[in-house]
Amino acid sequence: MIIILKNNATKEQVNEIMKEMERLKLKPLYMPGKEKTVLGAIGDERVLASLNLENYDFVEKIMPILSPYKLASRELHNHETIINVGDSLIGTPNFTVIAGPCAVESEEQIMETAKSLKRNNVYFLRGGAFKPRSSPYSFQGLGKEGLRLLKKAKEEYQLEIVTEVLDTEDVDMVCEYADIIQIGARNMQNFRLLKKAGATKKPVIVKRGMSASINDLLMSAEYILAEGNPNVILCERGIKTFEDAYRNTLDLTAIPVLKKKTHLPIIVDPSHAAGDREYVIQLAKAALAAGADGIMVEIHPDPEKAKSDGKQSLYPEQFNELMLQLKRLAEAESKIIR
Amino acid sequence: MIIILKNNATKEQVNEIMKEMERLKLKPLYMPGKEKTVLGAIGDERVLASLNLENYDFVEKIMPILSPYKLASRELHNHETIINVGDSLIGTPNFTVIAGPCAVESEEQIMETAKSLKRNNVYFLRGGAFKPRSSPYSFQGLGKEGLRLLKKAKEEYQLEIVTEVLDTEDVDMVCEYADIIQIGARNMQNFRLLKKAGATKKPVIVKRGMSASINDLLMSAEYILAEGNPNVILCERGIKTFEDAYRNTLDLTAIPVLKKKTHLPIIVDPSHAAGDREYVIQLAKAALAAGADGIMVEIHPDPEKAKSDGKQSLYPEQFNELMLQLKRLAEAESKIIR
Amino acid sequence: MIIILKNNATKEQVNEIMKEMERLKLKPLYMPGKEKTVLGAIGDERVLASLNLENYDFVEKIMPILSPYKLASRELHNHETIINVGDSLIGTPNFTVIAGPCAVESEEQIMETAKSLKRNNVYFLRGGAFKPRSSPYSFQGLGKEGLRLLKKAKEEYQLEIVTEVLDTEDVDMVCEYADIIQIGARNMQNFRLLKKAGATKKPVIVKRGMSASINDLLMSAEYILAEGNPNVILCERGIKTFEDAYRNTLDLTAIPVLKKKTHLPIIVDPSHAAGDREYVIQLAKAALAAGADGIMVEIHPDPEKAKSDGKQSLYPEQFNELMLQLKRLAEAESKIIR
Amino acid sequence: MIIILKNNATKEQVNEIMKEMERLKLKPLYMPGKEKTVLGAIGDERVLASLNLENYDFVEKIMPILSPYKLASRELHNHETIINVGDSLIGTPNFTVIAGPCAVESEEQIMETAKSLKRNNVYFLRGGAFKPRSSPYSFQGLGKEGLRLLKKAKEEYQLEIVTEVLDTEDVDMVCEYADIIQIGARNMQNFRLLKKAGATKKPVIVKRGMSASINDLLMSAEYILAEGNPNVILCERGIKTFEDAYRNTLDLTAIPVLKKKTHLPIIVDPSHAAGDREYVIQLAKAALAAGADGIMVEIHPDPEKAKSDGKQSLYPEQFNELMLQLKRLAEAESKIIR
Repeated sequence: MIIILKNNATKEQVNEIMKEMERLKLKPLYMPGKEKTVLGAIGDERVLASLNLENYDFVEKIMPILSPYKLASRELHNHETIINVGDSLIGTPNFTVIAGPCAVESEEQIMETAKSLKRNNVYFLRGGAFKPRSSPYSFQGLGKEGLRLLKKAKEEYQLEIVTEVLDTEDVDMVCEYADIIQIGARNMQNFRLLKKAGATKKPVIVKRGMSASINDLLMSAEYILAEGNPNVILCERGIKTFEDAYRNTLDLTAIPVLKKKTHLPIIVDPSHAAGDREYVIQLAKAALAAGADGIMVEIHPDPEKAKSDGKQSLYPEQFNELMLQLKRLAEAESKIIR
Repeated sequence: MIIILKNNATKEQVNEIMKEMERLKLKPLYMPGKEKTVLGAIGDERVLASLNLENYDFVEKIMPILSPYKLASRELHNHETIINVGDSLIGTPNFTVIAGPCAVESEEQIMETAKSLKRNNVYFLRGGAFKPRSSPYSFQGLGKEGLRLLKKAKEEYQLEIVTEVLDTEDVDMVCEYADIIQIGARNMQNFRLLKKAGATKKPVIVKRGMSASINDLLMSAEYILAEGNPNVILCERGIKTFEDAYRNTLDLTAIPVLKKKTHLPIIVDPSHAAGDREYVIQLAKAALAAGADGIMVEIHPDPEKAKSDGKQSLYPEQFNELMLQLKRLAEAESKIIR
Repeated sequence: MIIILKNNATKEQVNEIMKEMERLKLKPLYMPGKEKTVLGAIGDERVLASLNLENYDFVEKIMPILSPYKLASRELHNHETIINVGDSLIGTPNFTVIAGPCAVESEEQIMETAKSLKRNNVYFLRGGAFKPRSSPYSFQGLGKEGLRLLKKAKEEYQLEIVTEVLDTEDVDMVCEYADIIQIGARNMQNFRLLKKAGATKKPVIVKRGMSASINDLLMSAEYILAEGNPNVILCERGIKTFEDAYRNTLDLTAIPVLKKKTHLPIIVDPSHAAGDREYVIQLAKAALAAGADGIMVEIHPDPEKAKSDGKQSLYPEQFNELMLQLKRLAEAESKIIR
Repeated sequence: MIIILKNNATKEQVNEIMKEMERLKLKPLYMPGKEKTVLGAIGDERVLASLNLENYDFVEKIMPILSPYKLASRELHNHETIINVGDSLIGTPNFTVIAGPCAVESEEQIMETAKSLKRNNVYFLRGGAFKPRSSPYSFQGLGKEGLRLLKKAKEEYQLEIVTEVLDTEDVDMVCEYADIIQIGARNMQNFRLLKKAGATKKPVIVKRGMSASINDLLMSAEYILAEGNPNVILCERGIKTFEDAYRNTLDLTAIPVLKKKTHLPIIVDPSHAAGDREYVIQLAKAALAAGADGIMVEIHPDPEKAKSDGKQSLYPEQFNELMLQLKRLAEAESKIIR
């Protein structure tokens, strides 16, 4: 940790901090400059967090050297995490496709979707039973009935179920039905929900919040890992920027950056980023080429009748086309689609 | 509602939509242009939401004319909402000061703070018992013990208590102790929490999410209002931008914009925006001059020992100075500080 | 054009506007709603711009239906623009690779780079003779001497030269040496420079400004097109966002969005977006998969000795690897690399 | 300067860098950690810039301790810069009001405006003769004729003239007519224009670019200062964010942050930030309360007929009201309006 002091720092204040460092078994370094005085602490700087050195008025700035997460970090865990779900493996070099409607709406809709997955050799069905909607007047999901329908599709078509959990009080119920639970972008820093998801040991997809930095995302993953659940999948789904020609800005640079920092699998949701089915296929392909471990994509047997996010849901024939194109690309990239 | 069609829209598709509008008692308007065809719907366009017209592939874009919120809207409720808390009034032309530490840490700390409020004729004490922290390794708050300490300060110093609720399962307990409950920025779109806060009838401060638009904030307020709780206070606390010379960009333009759109009181949190006590006084003054109905500000009897957000907490003498300066400004602006 | 009026608009004001529309040969439409009154104008709304209707205090908002650009628009010019440079074609389905150092530094450096291009069958050499640097104390480029060295490389290795022009007074000189002139991101709204570039008829690469919307970029292209120069190439190079784990956020969604709006070729600069050579190969591949018509990438024979942007310059062996991988992808995508 | 190394750095590479530091008369510090190795350089780190250490593949990250600007820095020049223009002083504790139309349109318009300034004891008239417009089809200003009209108003009403210069080739001409030249937000990183403005010795207002960080703004000021022109005024005018309820997000936190970093005067342009006259008065007041040294505001004798930016121009009576309110605030804040 590097500590830059303000010009008004006195020798006594400097000494006090250096003594504290020693007390915590860190080796303090004193670097007096012409314009600024700088202190360094050699050792596991994370113990310094307890000192809250930034609180001092004579401290200009703290520059940590190490990442604030540990379990999520590749530096401390240099391997690729591979997650087993049913007969499938999620993580490099597999490329996992998760598809389905935004919301479960009816038995017919979900069975139709499941059939379409089967035809395309896709094994993960997504669908929301509890929907976070920005308006209180919008469709909020079928709730438990939606979970029941997903289970039915799972049994009939041998699919793994991915579904969102919105609130701590639903976690247990959702876990009964889901193979993977999803924490949505708006809940990425709902820390109580993260902890509860961590306690379940179910695989968890954590979607990046719309204004969450890559580090914030890893800290949210750390919450789940720290509860003893190693099955965390990160999901990039677009961030808020000034551009309004589409919904959110898909941040594909996050893929190689995350790959460098963490051992966890990373998937991409091109549908929520684009907000428009017209752009989804090209973004899905770009995600594969950028090194993602999979995609989560919205499809609907009849998007025009969808109760939510219809505009960004692929038509069935578009989904077939997407899978065709992904297969071609995956081959060129030595990825295994499953 | 204005509907812009793509060039590939057929006459039949247009007719189908226009018939649907009529079925919903809206007057349809057909505006064929040289390059684009445009449809209009005259009447309460909100009923159109059920049609999800944006789902259609031949629809280029939907432009709503009316705001998606109703109860929060000044257009439908042209008055100033004034909220009664104890003997205090929140809302124009009152200027409410809410002050206290980020987190309740000890009885001494909270009593010391309460005394400092009393000395400055400030009636609202804030303090977190449940803290949302980005790291699982950081101090997470004293929990129920924190609430108990706040209650004690309230009784001894006749203060109103403002404290955050993090999760639906805590709402009832927090309401027993708090006079105003606070929904934090990271929970602004935790819709289940909003609904539960709406069911309580307690005054609720909703903090704007770091990437929430002004409309998003009003939709979150609508969630609470729609549950029958009219006591909503909005709080601007900075948004995420590219600038990193401070923590978040305080959006003071949001004040006059919100004043135009809604009748709800609006306060400003300069502490979380700035992230540094050095900038807090000037931002608090700017908030008052921009037309805010109050501020929520972090203070601490000994910021250097604070367990969270110490860097942005004012020293006691800075708090005195802030109040002095605010009083001078409030006089010039005909605001009543309380 | 759709015009939403404030509630205070009088009948006289409405009539006045509608009369003006008729004067301009537009068909006015009156849509009185319960909460808002809306006006529509059918016809070529661009003539309405002269009225500046947004100036009126009783006008709430103007919603244009048509794009503000014409010559850049696919709607009015539904074809793919293909640009001839030497023996090469830029535009779909060609995938153009432009490579070279950030700045021309010496004859040896530029000849070494040219050789490396030749070996990889790359025909476009980039290199800056005039460098826009954020610090006045940084290396500002070799100026005319740099242009001379580029010319020498061109002649020896039969390459096309791409180089930036910074100021109107350099345009003529740069055009003598360059095959394609480049307008940098910081100059994207230097309208005088755009006009002068438009007057030259040389192919022009316009780089998207760091806070420029997709529409802004197309308006800048329109400036060049409106001067009679049809040879415009757009370049996405990352936008400013809150994320600081890399330099700028590469906006690959812009590719399919631009492809829908315009007929102009679109290339991607992964080097300036990433700011770090570690991420460049994956972003270049993602650009190809997203549908871009080419890339502009920084390489250097000895990046560690580079006078600018060395960190984002590929080592020669990384460049070879990039070309290998692009070729594999291009084949899968039926693109022709040249 | 702090240099964080990647794990793959060899002892030889570390030694090489440390030797280079010594060669440059810096004291090198070696801080081997368990997870990362860190190097420090004590002395004037700016000489290290020439080494471009970030270019090395074994260097993870460079953390500068000192600001990259010197002449603009308060640390090296701890005073308030006060700029003399005619009989007026710009800089703390003066509060300078600059007002006028976006563009000079006619003699009548500019004389009418000048009269309105005089009535309000405002001494600085702004007006654009050369206008940067995002569309090539929009009014581009009267050019030299506009400058002539400004001069006429200056002479008749004893005003100081503020006007924008767009291109290096206009600098000399504009300087003949202007008392202060303005570099617009879109030209903030037009470095050649900055240099030329630096060569003139005229007072220069540098407007912050829409995606420029506070540091970027100071680096642009440094360009002018480094040419020997000390008369630089910074102007905050809103930055690009995701919010679209107004034009740009006015960043008032930048005021106290800039005050801490630099000795240069800082003014605020509330008109371009808001993009709507409805919000201008409150933002102007907030700017004063936040500690700004002045404002630049758009007014027009007949905003509805304005050829550009009419929506954000104040009506004459609104300008009177603004001045009244500013005077009340200035008194409370011990500022001298002039």
